[in-house]
Amino acid sequence: MSHITATYLVHDRKGDLHKKAESIALGLTIGSWTHLPALEKKQLEKHKGEVVDVQALPENEDTNRYFKEGRSAGLIKIAYPSANFSPDLPAILTTLFGKLSLDGEVKLVDIQLDPQLESKFPGPQYGIEGIRNLLDVHDRPLLMSIFKGMIGKDLSEFEKQLTEQVTGGIDLVKDDEILFDNELTPFEKRIQVGASVLNDAYERTGERKLYAVNLTGRTSELRAKAKQAAELGASALLFNVFAYGLDVLQELAEDPDIPLPIMAHPAVSGALTQSPFYGFSNKVLLGKLLRLAGADLVLFPSPYGSVALDQKETADIADALTSEGPLKKAFPVPSAGIHPGLTPLLINDFGVDSIINAGGGIHGHPNGARAGAQAFRQAIDGVLAGRTLTETAQRSPELSQALELWGQPT
Amino acid sequence: MSHITATYLVHDRKGDLHKKAESIALGLTIGSWTHLPALEKKQLEKHKGEVVDVQALPENEDTNRYFKEGRSAGLIKIAYPSANFSPDLPAILTTLFGKLSLDGEVKLVDIQLDPQLESKFPGPQYGIEGIRNLLDVHDRPLLMSIFKGMIGKDLSEFEKQLTEQVTGGIDLVKDDEILFDNELTPFEKRIQVGASVLNDAYERTGERKLYAVNLTGRTSELRAKAKQAAELGASALLFNVFAYGLDVLQELAEDPDIPLPIMAHPAVSGALTQSPFYGFSNKVLLGKLLRLAGADLVLFPSPYGSVALDQKETADIADALTSEGPLKKAFPVPSAGIHPGLTPLLINDFGVDSIINAGGGIHGHPNGARAGAQAFRQAIDGVLAGRTLTETAQRSPELSQALELWGQPT
Ligand SMILES: [Mg+2]
Ligand SMILES: [Mg+2]
Repeated sequence: MSHITATYLVHDRKGDLHKKAESIALGLTIGSWTHLPALEKKQLEKHKGEVVDVQALPENEDTNRYFKEGRSAGLIKIAYPSANFSPDLPAILTTLFGKLSLDGEVKLVDIQLDPQLESKFPGPQYGIEGIRNLLDVHDRPLLMSIFKGMIGKDLSEFEKQLTEQVTGGIDLVKDDEILFDNELTPFEKRIQVGASVLNDAYERTGERKLYAVNLTGRTSELRAKAKQAAELGASALLFNVFAYGLDVLQELAEDPDIPLPIMAHPAVSGALTQSPFYGFSNKVLLGKLLRLAGADLVLFPSPYGSVALDQKETADIADALTSEGPLKKAFPVPSAGIHPGLTPLLINDFGVDSIINAGGGIHGHPNGARAGAQAFRQAIDGVLAGRTLTETAQRSPELSQALELWGQPT
Repeated sequence: MSHITATYLVHDRKGDLHKKAESIALGLTIGSWTHLPALEKKQLEKHKGEVVDVQALPENEDTNRYFKEGRSAGLIKIAYPSANFSPDLPAILTTLFGKLSLDGEVKLVDIQLDPQLESKFPGPQYGIEGIRNLLDVHDRPLLMSIFKGMIGKDLSEFEKQLTEQVTGGIDLVKDDEILFDNELTPFEKRIQVGASVLNDAYERTGERKLYAVNLTGRTSELRAKAKQAAELGASALLFNVFAYGLDVLQELAEDPDIPLPIMAHPAVSGALTQSPFYGFSNKVLLGKLLRLAGADLVLFPSPYGSVALDQKETADIADALTSEGPLKKAFPVPSAGIHPGLTPLLINDFGVDSIINAGGGIHGHPNGARAGAQAFRQAIDGVLAGRTLTETAQRSPELSQALELWGQPT
């Protein structure tokens, strides 16, 4: 019998975790069990949620003080029969964390789909390998950057910035997530100008690049817009999935007429993940669910910047995106606060199959964005060749300048 | 110049709330300002976010202890020019709370759209008045109930439960939010059987009732399914909006071929609202945004049950749904833990223009759901006539039994 298993971190007031677990398993499936007649039990057996595991965690004084009362912390694992829901993410979210999201201190920290259920989801259409093939770059972390302050700017600024970035050696450039349909840099024009810049670069250098255009607007128009984008020569899509819905992402990923890699932006996701007591773990939301729904690249806060996640949480996201399994792997893109001095750490923490993504760490280079990109490429090559940044910088003036400005963490 | 104003509750580490406010206002719009040349300033002026207000809140020792350091609490109000985003909720959410949702302790506690921007949103298509007209009930709170444990049950059980409930005097019956497409009680069949039960009841009693069928499945199929539902005789839709997306709700509300009231369920919303430090206030999410997007009825946890919200939060939701303004008013539906003994409190707290919604408080009546419904109707009539429940119960055996079982809060 197919099912999905959910693990919840609870901080329970009443203190009986087994009772709590039973009440979740029944409350979110058939409602009640003990007093049912035998015939009805037989009929409902295959719909009944099952408590798989209950694990008490040590009491935490800080937590108790915060709640002004003792709380029983624990991990509760429950299996929900697939017979109870249609195989789509809205039905799964509602089953696993609909009413329950409102019921005291409960955080959904892990999910596990059995292979039969997982096979209903597309996963990434390109994935790490597909994107490497598009770029023909197979042996190093990719380098990504973002436009700087495009609101109120026109297409000539767009063209200038894109050219600077790809000329310096950036592999992927993305729109800012807050750039929407607007008169100065319309969606269609950004795509066309973008394609032309990337083609010119290819003719000059033989290197392929991707530009991720921000797919925005009303939900029911997105697929047509994405198809149009592909026809106009777009190479990738940026998508604010948490401002829309996970199933909207999945429908974009599943559509055979949208042959573009999709980059999922974490905008709004902090509202769902930041509390230790409520909401979703980053591993579930940015890791497992985005991979199921078909994101090819997933941005998330790096552990290094001012907008930072815990090291452990970022590792969990990256694991969920890249673990072996039937679905393709998605590219982890740790973002925010990234400068060339962090390159050894990034490659150590996220491996060669990750994307180094910088904004200020590229545009803020003393010699501009092109030099900023060059500094990163020099740093990446150096790290992969086993040299320290300081050694690499001796023959790499752009990296040297970057290290002087931003330093190296020790 | 049109704009939207957002109010954030922050617990800031660095302690300079004005600086924090400026960095939000710039960071979420044009990026930087001070060092721009005069010409560029002129060009970007109309896109610049503006700090409207910064209000420090008293330091809270519990909060500081929780964060293990002093935090500056405050309310920061920022106006974002509408020129920066397309007039849709995904663009607005991304602008107001995209990156910012990930940036430390920031909660979005209020939003205010100017009339020009607000006019781009449909609001409720029926609203309180429209639903009262459908039911021809104008002078009392409406009474609503829910099916009990339908997973694994068939259409005969569905028909039996619906008949019991409407015969007892329920105005609206809703599907359970965890009932999805399934073979035993398919969507189309539930609608057809539901319509036939409601028609029979009308012929017997002259009273109109509504049955809200759970609209589920893949996002792009919802509108066609909703149209089909209307054609098959559905009278209302239940929708797990937070498992899909606010814009998906809006597209359902805006579609002229879906002439059905929409009941928004709060499933999954707790993941966005429960923390005092992160996410959205209930007033914004369940109140303002659901009304903008077009919910006619909004369920939210009542302040009385075990899954409860603070009294103040529920009042804020109800206010946001029913305040005077250009959009129609939506029905507040405080839910969970409701039994007939709470009727005076409910009418006192939420007024006559609200819906009394019970599950266990109807099905758990010693004489069954019909008697449970009758007990509520007796309680409502008594309260509106100025009698105490104890007085009313003297001539109302069903209410008397209910009070004996569940009591009256004092
Ligand atoms: Mg950005
Ligand atoms: Mg329910």
